[in-house]
Amino acid sequence: MLPWKTVIEIRRDSKTPLFIQITKAIIREISYGRLKAGQALPGSRSLSELIGVNRKTSIIAYEELMAQGWIEILPSKGTFVAKDLPVVTYHALNGESKHAAYPEKTCFPVKPWVAATTVYQRHASMIALDDGSPDTRLAPLDIIWRNCRSLTRGPFKNKLLAYGDLQGDPRFREVLAEYLSNTRGLACQKEHVMITRGSIMALHLVLNQIVNPGDVVLVGETNYPAANSIILNCGGSLQTIPVDENGISTHHVEEVCKKIKVTAIYITPHHHFPTTVTLSAERRLHLLELSQKHQFAILEDDYDYDFHYASGPILPLASFDRQGSVIYMGSFSKLLAPGIRIGYLVAPQNLIQALNQARRHLDRQGDFVLERALSQLILDGDLQRHLKKSLKAYRIRRNLFCQTLKKRCLEFVNFNPPEGGMAIWTKFNSSLDLKNLSENLASKGVYLDVDREILRQHHATRLGFASLNETEIVTAVEILGDCLERASLETH
Amino acid sequence: MLPWKTVIEIRRDSKTPLFIQITKAIIREISYGRLKAGQALPGSRSLSELIGVNRKTSIIAYEELMAQGWIEILPSKGTFVAKDLPVVTYHALNGESKHAAYPEKTCFPVKPWVAATTVYQRHASMIALDDGSPDTRLAPLDIIWRNCRSLTRGPFKNKLLAYGDLQGDPRFREVLAEYLSNTRGLACQKEHVMITRGSIMALHLVLNQIVNPGDVVLVGETNYPAANSIILNCGGSLQTIPVDENGISTHHVEEVCKKIKVTAIYITPHHHFPTTVTLSAERRLHLLELSQKHQFAILEDDYDYDFHYASGPILPLASFDRQGSVIYMGSFSKLLAPGIRIGYLVAPQNLIQALNQARRHLDRQGDFVLERALSQLILDGDLQRHLKKSLKAYRIRRNLFCQTLKKRCLEFVNFNPPEGGMAIWTKFNSSLDLKNLSENLASKGVYLDVDREILRQHHATRLGFASLNETEIVTAVEILGDCLERASLETH
Repeated sequence: MLPWKTVIEIRRDSKTPLFIQITKAIIREISYGRLKAGQALPGSRSLSELIGVNRKTSIIAYEELMAQGWIEILPSKGTFVAKDLPVVTYHALNGESKHAAYPEKTCFPVKPWVAATTVYQRHASMIALDDGSPDTRLAPLDIIWRNCRSLTRGPFKNKLLAYGDLQGDPRFREVLAEYLSNTRGLACQKEHVMITRGSIMALHLVLNQIVNPGDVVLVGETNYPAANSIILNCGGSLQTIPVDENGISTHHVEEVCKKIKVTAIYITPHHHFPTTVTLSAERRLHLLELSQKHQFAILEDDYDYDFHYASGPILPLASFDRQGSVIYMGSFSKLLAPGIRIGYLVAPQNLIQALNQARRHLDRQGDFVLERALSQLILDGDLQRHLKKSLKAYRIRRNLFCQTLKKRCLEFVNFNPPEGGMAIWTKFNSSLDLKNLSENLASKGVYLDVDREILRQHHATRLGFASLNETEIVTAVEILGDCLERASLETH
Repeated sequence: MLPWKTVIEIRRDSKTPLFIQITKAIIREISYGRLKAGQALPGSRSLSELIGVNRKTSIIAYEELMAQGWIEILPSKGTFVAKDLPVVTYHALNGESKHAAYPEKTCFPVKPWVAATTVYQRHASMIALDDGSPDTRLAPLDIIWRNCRSLTRGPFKNKLLAYGDLQGDPRFREVLAEYLSNTRGLACQKEHVMITRGSIMALHLVLNQIVNPGDVVLVGETNYPAANSIILNCGGSLQTIPVDENGISTHHVEEVCKKIKVTAIYITPHHHFPTTVTLSAERRLHLLELSQKHQFAILEDDYDYDFHYASGPILPLASFDRQGSVIYMGSFSKLLAPGIRIGYLVAPQNLIQALNQARRHLDRQGDFVLERALSQLILDGDLQRHLKKSLKAYRIRRNLFCQTLKKRCLEFVNFNPPEGGMAIWTKFNSSLDLKNLSENLASKGVYLDVDREILRQHHATRLGFASLNETEIVTAVEILGDCLERASLETH
C-alpha cells in the first residue's frame, strides 16, 4: 500500500479546503503516472483514518474526483483510478518531488522580439535622471479619483462597466474633440477620435494596420526607439532621414520619395525625439505636400505639444490636413502621470473603422470610468489649470537645470536649452566611460540608465528636468558634476 | 485687400483665446494657399481695427505667427507671409469653406482586418439576451473604488502612477499566483504570471508571439470567433477539430498531428465556446501527452472556471503540466464586470520574457492602481465572498431560465442545461427566420443580436442568463416564446 499520509500531505494552515487538497494530491499522482489506470484506492473510511481527516471530507473528495472522471466507485467492489485515463510519462525534471515547480521553459519554440528596447524603470529611492517624465506630485490625481468614484455611484455606473464602444467612451471623445479643436486647431469630431492606452497603443494599432512586410517607413536618423521597434516587428523596413535644427529634413524625404515607394513617415514635430528640436512650419507644409503627392501616411506623434516655453507651440500638421494624410497622436500620460494610461489618435474614418476591429481583438475596450473622469477634468477646467501650473513649474525647472548644468558640467557635456518638452539633449565628451559614470552616480543616489540605446549609440542622452523639484535638480546636477570630474580624472 | 473681418472670424463665445483664433485663421489661409508666400499683411494696428480686437491681441498673434515661422515682420517695411513657405494646392473638397471638415478618408490605402467579428453591444434600455455576461449589479464595485482611492492617497501613490513593471504590479502577481494555486492547483509563482487587459490581450500577445504566417493552429469546429480572428490575422491557418459532449476530440488532434506540424491548439475547457461542454479529465491528459510528443502549445482559455454548478470544476491542464505545454488564461471581467479590464496569463518564463517586450510596445503597462485594488479585494476575502454570492445567484438564474425556456419555448428550440458558465447553447428550429425574430423581440423590448456569427452559422446561439435578474428572465423568455410562436405561424 502507498504511504498515503505522505502522498496526500494535509496542510491545515492552508487556505485551500481539505477536500481540495486531497483531490489535488490524487490528481497529481494520477497525472504523474504514479497512480495507474485501474489501480485500487483505499475506501473513504480507510482514507480518512490514514491521512487523519473527517470521513465526510474523504467522501466529498472522492465524489469530486468521480464527478471529474478521475476515479470510479464500483458498488461492492471499491474505489479505483479510472480505467480509460491515458498513461503520461513526464520528463524527469531535476529531482522532481510532489511539490513540483512550475515549468521554467516551454516545450515549443518562442520567437524573439525584433529590436527589443530597454525598459526604463525609475528607482523609487533615488533621484532619477529620467528621459523626460512628468512630476506625478503635481498632478490632480485626487480629483481624478473623486470623479471616478462619483461616477461609479451615479446613474451611468452599469453602462460604464458593461461592454461598450471600441473607440472609447463617446462622451469623452466628444469633449476631447472640442478640446483638441480649441487647443490645436483640429477640425475633428468625436467620430475621428479613438481613445487608446497611452500613445504607444495608438502607434501599435496604426503601424500594424498600414505597414505590410517589406514596406518602407521613414524615421529620423535619431528616433524614438519604441517606434522603430514596432515598425520592424510589423515587417517594415526603416529608412532614416537626417534631422537638423529645424527638425526632420523634408528635402531628404522628397529625394527618397523620388526613388522608392514610401508607406509612412513617423515624426515627433514637438519635439523631435531625442534631440528636442521643433519641426518648422515650412517643413510641416512641405511634408503635407509630399504626402499628398506620394500618398504616404504621416504619423504625427505630438507627445510634447503642451510643453513649450519659448513661443507658443506650432499648430500640428493635422490641423491643416485636408487630404487625409495625417494620423495625429497624443497622450495624457505626459500631462498627468505615466500611470494614467490614456492616449488618443485622430484620423479619417476609414482608418478608425479598421482600427476598431483591431482594437476589438487587442483589449476589447478602454477604461470608461477613467475616460469619463478625464472628461469631467476637462469640463471643470481642472486639466487646464493643471497644465498652466505644471508649465510654469517646468519652465522654472528647465531654466534651473540648464543653468546648473552649464555652471557645473560644461567642460564635460554639450547641450542646447530646449524650447519645450521635459528633457535636455546632452552630449557627453567622447572619452567618458558611461558605465563607470552610471555606477558612480548610483553609489551617490542618482539613477541614470546607461543601458538606454540612445546613450550607447550617440554617447548622449536626454536628461529629464520635469519630474525633479528644484532641490532635487541642484542635488542631481551637483552629483553629476562630481562624477563627471572623477570619471574625467580616471580617463586621463 | 482681403475682407479680413470674414477671413478672421472672431468668436467671443469660444473657449479659444482671441489671439489663437487669429493665428489659426491666418495659418489656415496660408496653408490653403489663399495667402501667398511674401504677401503683405495689414499692420497690427489696422488688423485690430479691421477685425475689432484690442491692439495688444493683434500684436501677440503676430508675435506668435512670427515665432512659429509663418510670417516675417520687416522693420519699416511691414508684415508679410514668410517667403520660403511651400505652395500647397489642396484637392477641392466639395465646396470647402474656411470651416473645413476633418478629412473623411485617408490618402493612403488601409488594409482591412481579416475575419472581422461582430461587436456585441448591450442596449441600455432593453432586456438583453447577451452571450454570457456577468451581472454588474452584483459586483463589489464600490469596494474596488474605495480601494483605489485609498491607494492614491497612500504611500505608494507615486510609485503606482509612474512607469513600472511591464508584467503587471508585482504585489498583485504575487497575490494572484497564490490565489490560482489555492483555487486551481497551479504551482506558479509571480514570475510566471502576467497581468493583461482582459484575457483577449493575453490571447493577442501569445498568438502574435508564437504563430508565424502559415503555421497551423487547431481550434474546435465551433469556436470563440475572436480567437479565430486573431489567429487568421497572425497569418495562421485554422484547422478545425470536432467537438462532442466531452469537449474537443483529442483523438482527432492525434490524427492531425500525425500528418502535419501543429503549432498550437486553442481550447476553452471550461466550458467549450459556444456549446458549454466541459473537456473531460481523460482528454485533458491526452492533450498534454500529445503536446509533449509533438511540441505544440496549448492555449487554455479558462474563462468559465469559476462558474460551475453541477460538480466542482475540473482542474486546469496547467495544473498538471510539468513540461511547459500550457499557457493558462483567465479574467476578472467575467467575475466582476466586463468594464474591469483585468485578465492574466500564466506561462513558463521564456515566453513571459518575450511577451514583456511585446507588451512594452503595446500599451507599456497596466493600470497598477486597479491591479493593487484587486489584490486588496482578494486579500480581504471580498472577491471570494462575491464569487460565492454570484455563484448562488447564477445557479438560481440558470435553473429558472432553463425551466421557463422548456415550458414556454420547447417546440421551437433545443438545448441542454449547462453544467456551468453564464449561457445556454440554444438551437432554433431550422425553419425560423432569425432576422424577423430579432426585430419582433426588439419591438417588445428584448435585445438579441442576430448578427452574431454563431447565430448565422449554426442557427443557434448562446442565451445568457447571468446578467438578468429573476423578473427579467421570466419577462424575456415569455416575450421570446411569444415571438417564436408568431414567427412559426408566419413560416407556415
